[in-house]
Amino acid sequence: MAASIQFASPVAVDAQARAEYLEFAYRLAELAGEAILPRFRRPIAVDNKKTGADYDPVTQADRAAERAMRDEIRNHYPAHGILGEEFGFESGDGLTWVLDPIDGTRGFVMGLLHWGTLVALFDGQRPVVGVIRQPVLDETFAGDGARTIYTRGREERALATRPCPDLGEALAGTTAPEMFRAGRQAAGFERIRRRARGMRYGTDCYLYAMLAMGLADLVIEANLKPYDVQALIPVVEGAGGIITDWDGGNPAMGGEVLATGDARLHERVLAELRD
Amino acid sequence: MAASIQFASPVAVDAQARAEYLEFAYRLAELAGEAILPRFRRPIAVDNKKTGADYDPVTQADRAAERAMRDEIRNHYPAHGILGEEFGFESGDGLTWVLDPIDGTRGFVMGLLHWGTLVALFDGQRPVVGVIRQPVLDETFAGDGARTIYTRGREERALATRPCPDLGEALAGTTAPEMFRAGRQAAGFERIRRRARGMRYGTDCYLYAMLAMGLADLVIEANLKPYDVQALIPVVEGAGGIITDWDGGNPAMGGEVLATGDARLHERVLAELRD
Repeated sequence: MAASIQFASPVAVDAQARAEYLEFAYRLAELAGEAILPRFRRPIAVDNKKTGADYDPVTQADRAAERAMRDEIRNHYPAHGILGEEFGFESGDGLTWVLDPIDGTRGFVMGLLHWGTLVALFDGQRPVVGVIRQPVLDETFAGDGARTIYTRGREERALATRPCPDLGEALAGTTAPEMFRAGRQAAGFERIRRRARGMRYGTDCYLYAMLAMGLADLVIEANLKPYDVQALIPVVEGAGGIITDWDGGNPAMGGEVLATGDARLHERVLAELRD
Repeated sequence: MAASIQFASPVAVDAQARAEYLEFAYRLAELAGEAILPRFRRPIAVDNKKTGADYDPVTQADRAAERAMRDEIRNHYPAHGILGEEFGFESGDGLTWVLDPIDGTRGFVMGLLHWGTLVALFDGQRPVVGVIRQPVLDETFAGDGARTIYTRGREERALATRPCPDLGEALAGTTAPEMFRAGRQAAGFERIRRRARGMRYGTDCYLYAMLAMGLADLVIEANLKPYDVQALIPVVEGAGGIITDWDGGNPAMGGEVLATGDARLHERVLAELRD
């Protein structure tokens, strides 16, 4: 059991396998939602929160969801590795399932809605498929980097980002201003915030989904973990968006992340961040 | 037509009338939702936004929803006044319907979910009934100051805030740090942010509903309009919470607003804000 995933030579995944993995990722996210929903908005007295892990519904929801996904992976793909937020890393044959049972736990515990289950399959270099699922709304955003499909109940459609070349026209967002470290990160964020048309907060994974849907133009974040970002990459790219680190590099390991719907905007924001 | 509502001698509203008005407020919010939903998440190119009001789905949704509510009020209570975000103030017999068709428009336009329709009836001193409705989830939070009822589909239950006397244990939230003016407001907010257990952003009306549900402990905001806050007051108070301005006074005209689920926490935060 290694400490965590690292970049390695990519494992080849052909189109047929990719389609199979995307369907499986979708199923994992559904299983997670089934474990999470009964634990959503269960009020508990704050005083009780400190009396033991049994009284913490977040941990229960997170753990139950990740356990359900891990069991399913072991049954179907016993050779694959797994990295999950709750139960760490198990190495495998070079393909690794990257799981965040609830991205946006802080919102989840307050009964808010901008959270989701994240599932990706990492090939050693990039996530080849990614799924974002919001079970309260029965919404799934599933991408393979070439296309991204939205489903809600019987609704199903392909998503596309919208054109928005100028930062001054961009509707932007991030989870919280406090996620940027004082110094270079905070200064970079502040520069983008001041120049964007608007900056919305409290968004976690959900704003990347809205960017894929063509409703937001820019997401800027920092200090993400691999499981916070991997599922977002195929969803954003499949809808025509761009997602990199703040230097334009591979964002698969997290850190500083910049996503835009329009490639021209992405170039301009990278230039702003370099200044 | 006066410039806006002002405090005046309260018009007497007995229990039977209050129940009737609450039911009517609920119906207004449903009508608003019917006007809003077909306009939610309609992607438009950003370039098109500037070509004319016809291409702005937010304004269309806001206006259509407020128009539907105003028509219904004029049909049923032609003597009542109306204050709405989109179409201003019409004075009446002393009772005034206070409407925000979409509170949280910035989130709405990005496809996010923490927005809602707000409906209140103001008696000259206080809102006597208030409704928050999120039509995407078919959720309604309806309060008369004595109790608050949550409905979603066939689910219906009374809400209660939870105990949380200590700021250090409080899950808190606000719409954006930028809503506080530099100086006293920003310093007050920063003091609360640092001492609270967590500060969540991007919440608009929705976090007041979560506070009523016993899932959040504190909401701190500033520079609100009367139509941003009036509907929240009976919802928060009906669930056992406290909502005032930052001096402990009547929050009905907006401005600086503080809501907590626990009265002990409210006293402590007011003391912090006075320092």
